[in-house]
Amino acid sequence: MAGYDYDLFVIGGGSGGVRAARVAAALGKRVGIAEEYRYGGTCVIRGCVPKKLFVYASQFAEHFEDAAGYGWTVPPASFDWKTLVANKDREIARLEGLYKKNIQGAGGETFQSRAVLVDRHTVRLEAEGRTVTADQILIATGGRPAAHPSLSGHELCVTSNEMFHLEELPKAIVIEGAGYIAIEFANILHGLGVETTVVYRGMEILSRFDMDLRRGLHEAMEAKGIRILCQTLIEVVSKRSDGQLDVLTNDGKKLVAGQVLLSLGRVPNTENFGLEAAGVKLDKLGAVEVDAYSRTSVNNIWAVGDVTNRVQLTPVAIHEAMCFVETAFKDNPTAPDHDTIATAVFSQPEIGTVGLSEDEAGKRFAELEIYRASFRPMRHTLSGRREKMLMKLVVDAATRKVLGAHILGPDAGEMAQLLAIPIKAGLDKDAFDRTMAVHPTAAEELVTMYKPSYRVKKGERID
Amino acid sequence: MAGYDYDLFVIGGGSGGVRAARVAAALGKRVGIAEEYRYGGTCVIRGCVPKKLFVYASQFAEHFEDAAGYGWTVPPASFDWKTLVANKDREIARLEGLYKKNIQGAGGETFQSRAVLVDRHTVRLEAEGRTVTADQILIATGGRPAAHPSLSGHELCVTSNEMFHLEELPKAIVIEGAGYIAIEFANILHGLGVETTVVYRGMEILSRFDMDLRRGLHEAMEAKGIRILCQTLIEVVSKRSDGQLDVLTNDGKKLVAGQVLLSLGRVPNTENFGLEAAGVKLDKLGAVEVDAYSRTSVNNIWAVGDVTNRVQLTPVAIHEAMCFVETAFKDNPTAPDHDTIATAVFSQPEIGTVGLSEDEAGKRFAELEIYRASFRPMRHTLSGRREKMLMKLVVDAATRKVLGAHILGPDAGEMAQLLAIPIKAGLDKDAFDRTMAVHPTAAEELVTMYKPSYRVKKGERID
Repeated sequence: MAGYDYDLFVIGGGSGGVRAARVAAALGKRVGIAEEYRYGGTCVIRGCVPKKLFVYASQFAEHFEDAAGYGWTVPPASFDWKTLVANKDREIARLEGLYKKNIQGAGGETFQSRAVLVDRHTVRLEAEGRTVTADQILIATGGRPAAHPSLSGHELCVTSNEMFHLEELPKAIVIEGAGYIAIEFANILHGLGVETTVVYRGMEILSRFDMDLRRGLHEAMEAKGIRILCQTLIEVVSKRSDGQLDVLTNDGKKLVAGQVLLSLGRVPNTENFGLEAAGVKLDKLGAVEVDAYSRTSVNNIWAVGDVTNRVQLTPVAIHEAMCFVETAFKDNPTAPDHDTIATAVFSQPEIGTVGLSEDEAGKRFAELEIYRASFRPMRHTLSGRREKMLMKLVVDAATRKVLGAHILGPDAGEMAQLLAIPIKAGLDKDAFDRTMAVHPTAAEELVTMYKPSYRVKKGERID
Repeated sequence: MAGYDYDLFVIGGGSGGVRAARVAAALGKRVGIAEEYRYGGTCVIRGCVPKKLFVYASQFAEHFEDAAGYGWTVPPASFDWKTLVANKDREIARLEGLYKKNIQGAGGETFQSRAVLVDRHTVRLEAEGRTVTADQILIATGGRPAAHPSLSGHELCVTSNEMFHLEELPKAIVIEGAGYIAIEFANILHGLGVETTVVYRGMEILSRFDMDLRRGLHEAMEAKGIRILCQTLIEVVSKRSDGQLDVLTNDGKKLVAGQVLLSLGRVPNTENFGLEAAGVKLDKLGAVEVDAYSRTSVNNIWAVGDVTNRVQLTPVAIHEAMCFVETAFKDNPTAPDHDTIATAVFSQPEIGTVGLSEDEAGKRFAELEIYRASFRPMRHTLSGRREKMLMKLVVDAATRKVLGAHILGPDAGEMAQLLAIPIKAGLDKDAFDRTMAVHPTAAEELVTMYKPSYRVKKGERID
């Protein structure tokens, strides 16, 4: 080991890489980490964090409207995109600095460079024109928005990466895709006053989520004025003489927009990192193949986070990084646990979800009890907003175990986080029923649904 | 039984009484219920519900301020108290109607009358000038704000009851007391622009809550501009010629206010209901004495809710009512479970809490692990608001069982509701640690505090 420059070299300074570098360095390991763009990765630089700041910004328009029912008179407010972007950038720069500082504070060495594998122990730092060697290597290069080269006019379109630094907000936008990123941006842009259209080839937005959430959010978004075209594709994007874009769909609709956002999934960053040279195997989709312990086909090279295309979420990358350090440096082989992960979609209304959807549970369990409530959040009794909150528990009838919880409405993400504790632990519905309500909250609904709304037998709903 | 007019007569149409009447009627019992004021009781008419509507109203001022950091320019907004009260009243009237309708829909008979016990089976309906008889009787007359007759000038002061219908908002208010009602009103009034002073004889606001929450909220309220005078009493309130009130404290301070709110606890409504005539025993504080099943000293008379002075909370009254119906009418003796009840204080920032405080746990357990995080909520990174969020878990070191959770910050009440499920079920800290974070949320902090902030041995903090 003494023959290498580092005990661990990490390629990629996002959530997973930074955590691994910091924790390994804190153990006294000699750690280097290289990032070619900005420390913090997708989450901090052009994902979770700036996205949520944009969400907050976009919610104010509704706050101003809601105030009237509460006795407030608010004169028309104005919004300046450049101020938001500048303030967001200042916060992101602060977080980026912290990420770097924390690694250095733990004794790790940070490089601002693309790093390419030369062989299984050697990394070339391109910005420095030199190579370093390491006993263990961690690939944490993340992912990026999928391109759509076959679309005529794709070069006129942007991805989520560019959305964080648009020079100005368009008057209208067309978004292709209906995954959580597309849906979050649709709500952000609508809230900031942009005329927003979502184009999606599938039957319903947000595939893989519980169907009640998908339909409920779809309706709520349309009620706000967001246009959603399902079973539709963009065929051609072309630039007009006035600078606007013409967007032609497969069913002959013609839309006009200042921007077209392509949000068609994300792909792992595995090209031109020398993975082939080092003998690291990729799967069919181009992701790094790893075993249960995040080890690649080369036994001193590991990979965590989006580049492995397991579950593309920041906390999962961090968890995988911590398990990797346990395995590689603490003689405590620890496989990351990818079971029962709660997630949120920061749409408006918000989605929070954990465990199995009704459809998925219906395939795996003979009989389900579905507890479902739809109500107007108390806040909206005076605001007059018609948006409803939806709460749903999916319960195995045989064991009473709560298999899934699905929420649409304010703070759904916070709720899903905490519901994940009892659901992950396998508690049954009786544990929910025994819990006293906190009044008045929205979450009290989740502990006071005493009778099933309906049952599902062999995947079929029965009332 | 056929000899009585009713199987059950309920005195009092608040949360507990209405639930008992409705559920018993739905079982086919002949049920009457009398309410002398308004159906819905404290919770709906002058407690939880209108209070929370006022809280929403009072939060807008901060929303308007927070918007600037997000790129919004909001011209000065104005607030009209009468509009808020009128809109609130309309919603309360709607709920009141629902309460009555639900009883009637289940087959119960509602009376608008004071009802007084003549003997253990006879009730006089004062508004109707007649008596009815019942096999079982339920006392659910609730409570009211404690008076303070020994205070010179007490007749110039108001209680929380009057706060819901003030003709106009005062320019300044003095609130005596620092229980949750006092504290919620202090924050509401401050948010609506009233210069607010809290006067409290104790050392720190909100006795019985975790000390970190008490201190944290105290600081946050002062930082907003709410004045808090602890270890202080009001000695004299007197009216000035300009209509304002002079408020003299025991340490010689002189405050001037348009209103003085006395918030000194609540007392059970047990006077002049004929309880003595029927032989129903009261305790020293005037509350109806009940056994574990809510039965009074007279075996066909029962009592639930605030009148029994057990735990004065709406969901507890409802739970007691449902247990009473199981016991009295379904041959299924069920004692209400008062253990591990989560509660919220809708202060600004909000409090959510469940289980044991650090101090209380320190008395009962040999060694504790305290997990504690204080951070700026993401929303406030751009708003510039300096308020911090506090999260704290109290864990028994021997068993790792989570004994208590304490939160100060946005949505703390919603969080406490859901934390109550695993904590009531007795889950340990490992169950929290095994739960994947949802990013970015505030609640993720509660599942990512892997190392104790400090320990408490025999009630003493050790680091």
